[in-house]
Amino acid sequence: MTEVTFKRLALIGIGLIGSSIARAARQHGLAEEIVCAARTADSRRVAKELKIVDAAYDDPVEAVRGADLVIFCTPVGTYSKLAEQIAPALEQGAIVTDVGSVKAAVVKAIGPHMPDYVDFIPGHPVAGTEKSGPAAGFAELFINRWCILTPTDTARDEAVEKLSAFWSAMGSKVETMDAEHHDLVLAITSHIPHLIAYNIVGTADDLEDVTQSEVIKYSAGGFRDFTRIAASDPTMWRDVFLHNKEAVLEMLGRFTEDLAQLQRAIRWDDGDTLFKIFSRTRAIRRQIIDAGQETPEPDFGRVHSADESPKKP
Amino acid sequence: MTEVTFKRLALIGIGLIGSSIARAARQHGLAEEIVCAARTADSRRVAKELKIVDAAYDDPVEAVRGADLVIFCTPVGTYSKLAEQIAPALEQGAIVTDVGSVKAAVVKAIGPHMPDYVDFIPGHPVAGTEKSGPAAGFAELFINRWCILTPTDTARDEAVEKLSAFWSAMGSKVETMDAEHHDLVLAITSHIPHLIAYNIVGTADDLEDVTQSEVIKYSAGGFRDFTRIAASDPTMWRDVFLHNKEAVLEMLGRFTEDLAQLQRAIRWDDGDTLFKIFSRTRAIRRQIIDAGQETPEPDFGRVHSADESPKKP
Ligand SMILES: NC(=O)c1ccc[n+]([C@@H]2O[C@H](COP(=O)([O-])OP(=O)(O)OC[C@H]3O[C@@H](n4cnc5c(N)ncnc54)[C@H](OP(=O)(O)O)[C@@H]3O)[C@@H](O)[C@H]2O)c1
Ligand SMILES: NC(=O)c1ccc[n+]([C@@H]2O[C@H](COP(=O)([O-])OP(=O)(O)OC[C@H]3O[C@@H](n4cnc5c(N)ncnc54)[C@H](OP(=O)(O)O)[C@@H]3O)[C@@H](O)[C@H]2O)c1
Repeated sequence: MTEVTFKRLALIGIGLIGSSIARAARQHGLAEEIVCAARTADSRRVAKELKIVDAAYDDPVEAVRGADLVIFCTPVGTYSKLAEQIAPALEQGAIVTDVGSVKAAVVKAIGPHMPDYVDFIPGHPVAGTEKSGPAAGFAELFINRWCILTPTDTARDEAVEKLSAFWSAMGSKVETMDAEHHDLVLAITSHIPHLIAYNIVGTADDLEDVTQSEVIKYSAGGFRDFTRIAASDPTMWRDVFLHNKEAVLEMLGRFTEDLAQLQRAIRWDDGDTLFKIFSRTRAIRRQIIDAGQETPEPDFGRVHSADESPKKP
Repeated sequence: MTEVTFKRLALIGIGLIGSSIARAARQHGLAEEIVCAARTADSRRVAKELKIVDAAYDDPVEAVRGADLVIFCTPVGTYSKLAEQIAPALEQGAIVTDVGSVKAAVVKAIGPHMPDYVDFIPGHPVAGTEKSGPAAGFAELFINRWCILTPTDTARDEAVEKLSAFWSAMGSKVETMDAEHHDLVLAITSHIPHLIAYNIVGTADDLEDVTQSEVIKYSAGGFRDFTRIAASDPTMWRDVFLHNKEAVLEMLGRFTEDLAQLQRAIRWDDGDTLFKIFSRTRAIRRQIIDAGQETPEPDFGRVHSADESPKKP
């Protein structure tokens, strides 16, 4: 692992992802000074109380001044305005990156505002939980998870290497690809799963014949797993769908087509088709576990005894 | 909790659910003798090696002979034939029940074969994991989970009470309702979640522009959660969909309608609608956690550090 230390790391936004970076960067000594900007006084207070930042600013311009690494950690819908705002204060030679869950839209939102004396390298750590805010983060979040960088043509190779080393030092595995391909891959591995999870929770909430209390009582049959990812931040996810429209609609079209095939098989009592479709999926899970992206424990290792309390991550 | 002991408990099938019942019944002293019938020699051997049964039979008729509690623990598609087979050997006054994930079809499959000197009480413990087979079970599976009984008109009240006490003693909370309502409730809380999980894993597997290795690498974005329930036994789930067709098609129709609304909102950049739909779901999750049906730990309390190994349930 390359030795990497930044002088001043500025995090724009200090929620789940921003505060996890702050914790991991501090733990691994990746920055001499860590500062953040946050919108609400509450988030600034929490970040300071937790001692995960050296300073928390109201004004993002204050945060980026003198920073050699600037990371956007707010919902992607806020990027363009924030980029315009901070651009004049950016340090010569600074690396500017982000953690947004979409990438082509981020290139368009931030890119045009960037002065040519900074290296702009969009990024996305494929790691997260359903929780939000500065208290929800933890230093281990990125360990063994992939971080995708989608460097623009103008970014210098040594800057890309330095940013890669930063993510590696926090435990990530780093991959580079182009922004459009990122958006297609994440549409199926992240965006569509969230969309259908939000959707089924909504459908269940609207039923007249089944009460909400019944949905809650019998959720252990499968439903509760969907509520976890559907508990993610609505602002973040609204922005994801607004900013990865084409890829999401394309994948959603395929999902719906496939669902129609299953629906038809059920309607026509076609057990063979059902069995065939239900059989192909175990192999994929096996590979995800082998790749270290999932726990092999049944039921995610959930606690099953009433008196034992759940474990901390 | 009522004191309850059966003389001989016969489990037809000794997979995840059957073997969990065997373990829990043994642990709580709910039967003097526990026997099972299993199709393969391998399952019979494992069940005996694990010492969770006193005897394992090839022939279900042998298992039920002398039993005062008989529980069907095989895929529901096998029920009718098995019921016909064991009926003549059933003990006077025996309770006959099952654990199948659908109920109206089970009443039709087993009911007609039952002699009038037994009490037939269909049941469904709403608890499980994605694993199968006798080694996958554990005694704590039913703790704090609901078990739904759908007693037929002919079952005696004291038999229903005794069976309820049996499930309570294994840690379950017991509810009774009619079979049709059960099927509607479970369609949304269990069957549709499994169907769409199987479906998205299939969709991802079929893509040309995104490789399988990419799906696996970046699955931590949400996709991997779906692969868990899509790793469930294909035979069991084929049978569930073939035997709860009406309710599943009804709920699937609603799910698809709602998904079309989301699709439209994305297409027309309608952020307000997306935000509104994404906001209603947190409350439901909160209630599921408060009801003790889910772990409050972020990300299911998954292990996030590379060197820590996952915890046993
Ligand atoms: N959550 C995940 O699983 C995950 C995974 C990978 C990438 N990401 C990406 O990470 C980014 C942040 O997500 P998160 O989960 O960390 O969110 P979060 O916990 O909700 O935190 C968001 C942060 O952004 C700030 N913020 C929100 N709106 C703002 C605005 N209009 N102007 C200035 N600051 C604003 C918030 O400030 P206040 O607290 O003061 O409101 C907060 O500090 C998003 O772009 C998301 O796509 C998320
Ligand atoms: N898994 C869940 O999450 C869950 C939850 C609630 C209820 N249920 C219900 O529980 C029942 C069993 O599920 P499970 O998860 O325990 O399944 P499992 O682990 O796959 O075990 C199934 C058992 O049934 C036997 N079996 C399969 N086909 C048979 C046949 N044609 N004739 C005779 N025996 C046969 C198997 O014998 P061999 O091992 O010898 O093949 C095995 O012992 C199903 O009706 C299901 O709907 C399951």
